[in-house]
Amino acid sequence: MTSVHSFRRTLSSDLAQAVVALVESEGLRTGDPLESVKALAARFDVAVPTMREALRRLEGLGMVDFRHGSGIYVGPNAGRRVLANPLQSRPDADQLVELLEARRQIEPSLAMLAAEVRDPAGIALMDETLAQAQAQIASGDDRLWLTNLDFHRAVAAAGGNSVLVEVLDSIVLIHAEDQREILRLHGDADDDHAEHAHLAGCVRRGEPEAARDAAYSHLDHVVEVIRARRR
Amino acid sequence: MTSVHSFRRTLSSDLAQAVVALVESEGLRTGDPLESVKALAARFDVAVPTMREALRRLEGLGMVDFRHGSGIYVGPNAGRRVLANPLQSRPDADQLVELLEARRQIEPSLAMLAAEVRDPAGIALMDETLAQAQAQIASGDDRLWLTNLDFHRAVAAAGGNSVLVEVLDSIVLIHAEDQREILRLHGDADDDHAEHAHLAGCVRRGEPEAARDAAYSHLDHVVEVIRARRR
Repeated sequence: MTSVHSFRRTLSSDLAQAVVALVESEGLRTGDPLESVKALAARFDVAVPTMREALRRLEGLGMVDFRHGSGIYVGPNAGRRVLANPLQSRPDADQLVELLEARRQIEPSLAMLAAEVRDPAGIALMDETLAQAQAQIASGDDRLWLTNLDFHRAVAAAGGNSVLVEVLDSIVLIHAEDQREILRLHGDADDDHAEHAHLAGCVRRGEPEAARDAAYSHLDHVVEVIRARRR
Repeated sequence: MTSVHSFRRTLSSDLAQAVVALVESEGLRTGDPLESVKALAARFDVAVPTMREALRRLEGLGMVDFRHGSGIYVGPNAGRRVLANPLQSRPDADQLVELLEARRQIEPSLAMLAAEVRDPAGIALMDETLAQAQAQIASGDDRLWLTNLDFHRAVAAAGGNSVLVEVLDSIVLIHAEDQREILRLHGDADDDHAEHAHLAGCVRRGEPEAARDAAYSHLDHVVEVIRARRR
């Protein structure tokens, strides 16, 4: 196992950390522009190549975005504590089963928490993604799989614990690409949607045990589909 | 919420991904040396500064380590799918409670899984960290808090699902520095150790419900300590 100590020390770069502190202190959010590399170098009193190197380090983490010809922006992972590794190969069938089993260990607890806490923003997001999925099923929109992923993240959000939202996000992002195929194999978008709607109802009505069981049986269903594919 | 799509595209760098593929195909592990920047640049047919930029991106993710005057090595996060963000500020008291509550949602399921699966390597690691903690308590070794963190990771490992191990690792790493203070506040290293030993016993004997309850009550204990500090 990695020593906690060496991990922290090896990765910490004072300059990159200073940019993170700047983003925080100015209250910048994902998509907000940052100063130019040159202006940042002047601000922190370092050479431009040194500044650029620190920014590339941040880019690797998804903390900043370089947009060609446009400048530097706050990236999607700013403020996050748990991340999906953006540089990993796509999971093979065995790894996919492991990922889904990880979700099966975590999501029922999250569904239970969601039904206990019922965070209003999370509930609103949950209802919004359900409505969007319904419309996409009706119109045959092929982005339904993305909406379905957002539904699972919305349930986590209803639990009100942002660390758990990040954990679920990370796991879901790892196999996002496969979700499209799962939906294709699963074959019945209506069934899938009905399971989501049932889970959402349990959360909305504040029924923790029912929400937990709904999450279990939904994920069992998905694991079944993937197991069948391997055979 | 971040779109899954843009996240993937923004972060992917072909060159960094190629280095990841090289590490995988050669079966390299954390700590193994990589070729020099110059040799890698030649291998991938790019300019040295371009290669260096890709490697800095990987360094930001903990996928490679630059050691001054010595070269480039495979980093602690190679092969990982879920990561702790290495560039984040230390959690404040509210965030610490949120982190511990996240662990309280996840660890009882992991303890239950551990008692069901009883992965031999995980069990061995669990026993090893317990013995080490015992010795450190006897000698007054101040690295006890690190060993205690390793114990929680070992329980996750006994469940045999590497995604869940990475998830727990990430959460634990985020507040590793605070763990030292928790132990100091908690004040009773022997009590803490007895709770760990009890949990380990449930896992070893294959008692899932007892393992789950042991994890709950241990983490409740820790959350109590932190809550008391905030008041």
